Amino acid sequence: MWKLPLDGESGRILEEILKRAFERVRGDVVVKDNLKLSGDCLVIRGKRVKIEGDIYILAIGKASVAMAKGAEDILGDRLKGGLVVTKYGFSMPLGRCRVLEAGHPIPDENGLRAARAAYDLVRGLSDGDILFVLISGGGSALLPAPDGISLEDKMFVTDLLLKSGATIQEINCVRKHLSFLKGGKLRKAAYPAKVVTMVLSDVIGNDLSSIASGPTFVDSTTFEDAVNVLKRYGLWDRLPSSVRKHLREGIEGRAQETLKPEDEDMNDSVTEIIGDNRYFCGVLCDAAIELGVSPIHFTSFVEGEAREVAKVVAAIVKEHLFSDERKPQLLIFGGETTVKVQGSGKGGRSQELALSLAVSMSGWKGYKVVSLSTDGNDGPTDAAGAVVDDTTLLKAQNRGLNPLSYLDNNDSYNFFNALEGLVFTGPTQTNVNDVVVALVGYT
Amino acid sequence: MWKLPLDGESGRILEEILKRAFERVRGDVVVKDNLKLSGDCLVIRGKRVKIEGDIYILAIGKASVAMAKGAEDILGDRLKGGLVVTKYGFSMPLGRCRVLEAGHPIPDENGLRAARAAYDLVRGLSDGDILFVLISGGGSALLPAPDGISLEDKMFVTDLLLKSGATIQEINCVRKHLSFLKGGKLRKAAYPAKVVTMVLSDVIGNDLSSIASGPTFVDSTTFEDAVNVLKRYGLWDRLPSSVRKHLREGIEGRAQETLKPEDEDMNDSVTEIIGDNRYFCGVLCDAAIELGVSPIHFTSFVEGEAREVAKVVAAIVKEHLFSDERKPQLLIFGGETTVKVQGSGKGGRSQELALSLAVSMSGWKGYKVVSLSTDGNDGPTDAAGAVVDDTTLLKAQNRGLNPLSYLDNNDSYNFFNALEGLVFTGPTQTNVNDVVVALVGYT
Repeated sequence: MWKLPLDGESGRILEEILKRAFERVRGDVVVKDNLKLSGDCLVIRGKRVKIEGDIYILAIGKASVAMAKGAEDILGDRLKGGLVVTKYGFSMPLGRCRVLEAGHPIPDENGLRAARAAYDLVRGLSDGDILFVLISGGGSALLPAPDGISLEDKMFVTDLLLKSGATIQEINCVRKHLSFLKGGKLRKAAYPAKVVTMVLSDVIGNDLSSIASGPTFVDSTTFEDAVNVLKRYGLWDRLPSSVRKHLREGIEGRAQETLKPEDEDMNDSVTEIIGDNRYFCGVLCDAAIELGVSPIHFTSFVEGEAREVAKVVAAIVKEHLFSDERKPQLLIFGGETTVKVQGSGKGGRSQELALSLAVSMSGWKGYKVVSLSTDGNDGPTDAAGAVVDDTTLLKAQNRGLNPLSYLDNNDSYNFFNALEGLVFTGPTQTNVNDVVVALVGYT
Repeated sequence: MWKLPLDGESGRILEEILKRAFERVRGDVVVKDNLKLSGDCLVIRGKRVKIEGDIYILAIGKASVAMAKGAEDILGDRLKGGLVVTKYGFSMPLGRCRVLEAGHPIPDENGLRAARAAYDLVRGLSDGDILFVLISGGGSALLPAPDGISLEDKMFVTDLLLKSGATIQEINCVRKHLSFLKGGKLRKAAYPAKVVTMVLSDVIGNDLSSIASGPTFVDSTTFEDAVNVLKRYGLWDRLPSSVRKHLREGIEGRAQETLKPEDEDMNDSVTEIIGDNRYFCGVLCDAAIELGVSPIHFTSFVEGEAREVAKVVAAIVKEHLFSDERKPQLLIFGGETTVKVQGSGKGGRSQELALSLAVSMSGWKGYKVVSLSTDGNDGPTDAAGAVVDDTTLLKAQNRGLNPLSYLDNNDSYNFFNALEGLVFTGPTQTNVNDVVVALVGYT
């Protein structure tokens, strides 16, 4: 499945490091690493939850199938059933759970159906039952749950907000107040069952109320806050009337508020982050050491415009190449960049970062860089990312490709496709943002 | 002279580290570190040059006065005289050298006069004489030397090229072929004297033909190349007729070519880089260690849009704050960013980087960051840079300042001025690009 176009001994080592690391952060593996059955208890990272009734799984996001598989393996016939929602093309058959596919990043009718099915599942739980919620990135779009409004109206509001300059916190505040699952409302619906949540985080900094819009987590914002956000950005009068009506009803106490800290003890709950970008960078470090390479993990907090971030990554790679030290080193940067699209090309943030990095590294020798979206799905392309080394610009020149033109046109996919520099992984069954890894110190 | 608004014990240590490092990279200090008189020889970083005639200094750039002072101190009465050209406000009286001030970054009539005086000085040298050239950043604008055309025409061409999308190499190729000093022509003019050049580099990567346009260094480009660049960008027909005439004469061999590698042995020459951003980062490391702080020098190759570079620097600072390790560390980033000006405010690249970094660090505690242009002159402002710590955003909020609005308006100077966060150093008598230093690990 993997296609990682790396040459030579150093390429072989880099590929092996990446494959070992991806193996260890796959949804099923991290769930199994953090979940045990011990007598009549579930043990989640050392926290014990007594099994007094049935156990059901609700798994959502790009890694949901693998996470559910891991839980099935551990729970065996203690598991009663469950529902798994993932992106089209990401599903695999499971033992006891039903798997649904839905639209991502644009929600669709199948997502709506999945959200209703999830709601029906959790509403049917009894005191003593355990709802085992497995969350990975993408869950928010996969499970659209418009409350009292149509999906179209909710998407219209989201679009208005995205273009308004509102912060992501402000956008989420509004969206949670238009949803019957987000902002902890899934946990409310599951009452009185116990709720155990395992999270594979794709949010830099791991804010639990942001990951998949926090369906089982508390949210401190109110209907009033949501209305104030919409008014602050001059959007209130442009809203569909159904949206204004729902928010007004919320203020009057006639629509359901998000889960509040004071509701915390309404049903037993355990929430654990079992994997994130930092964890992945850690397993990259482990794998590097196993293969005789010294790792340096610089950060898991990378944000910013991909082409500019690439210049700083390049600056640090150059410093290592400039130094006399010739031992193999793996330089690791984690996070998630953004791309302000101004051209009409095809690409993703990891590919665009790679292209800009290739330009910045002009004239330097002795490095191999892989820039990857860990879910295997970089932007609206079938590639996970791209590979850059000291032959990239030369190959481009030989084929008459101008890297700067491709960069200006946000056309990184076609640039790397022509050079056979794209990385394909297929669905990786994980989702922990992006990494850029640079192997240096090989002669 | 210095104003570095840092509080507390950690602030005192950071200030002391910076002051010690600046002391060690001052023009006079680095010249004295690298120059000795030994019997009848000059010794420059171990290279001996026999003194057989008179010694003259030509020093240009923002650090030229200090560099000349260092050379005067070592050479004593072996020095016959010299000429020093610096920016308005950067001069100090010297013993044997005449000091001229000129325009920077916009060249002016005083620069033209200085260039003619420099040319007259070096033309008068004899066999056996030594021309001691001390170069620091800014030298190119301070010593405009249009060859056969007016200064206005040369500036017009430069402006056309800057807006054309030509690379800096292409722009320099044209400019060197319109100059009677650049591209090694100063060294040609000094023939048959020996030429010793000491360089304080303000060019990332230390390309000698770029620093102050390489007046004593070889240049591989030709008049044909210059004409091709102008035609490639569709500028040829828009040139003043004097410029076209000069370039045509060059192609016909009737104007002076730049210094070529095959001319290398025409007069004895020694060129040494005696200081650059990496050297400065090294002395920052030394000073940190002296004060009990562990330094990490990440790179001296930073380039990119200041506000985006800031996000990656912030990402690395956050990773250090996130780790449990609580020992004091100094994180050091060197290089030079750029700012695409879109607002109407006042600022410089180091101040804008600091403002963006403050925004990115929202919610984090326990750090102090100083973002500085080492020449003491950040953009068109009287500040050298700015200071950011975990009180910056709070202070802004208390005064009703929105950091994002100031960032959008490229108004970092007024933001930090209102918070008393600007750093003032006056002319530092050095010029080795910019640094961002972050002190972490203090509680």
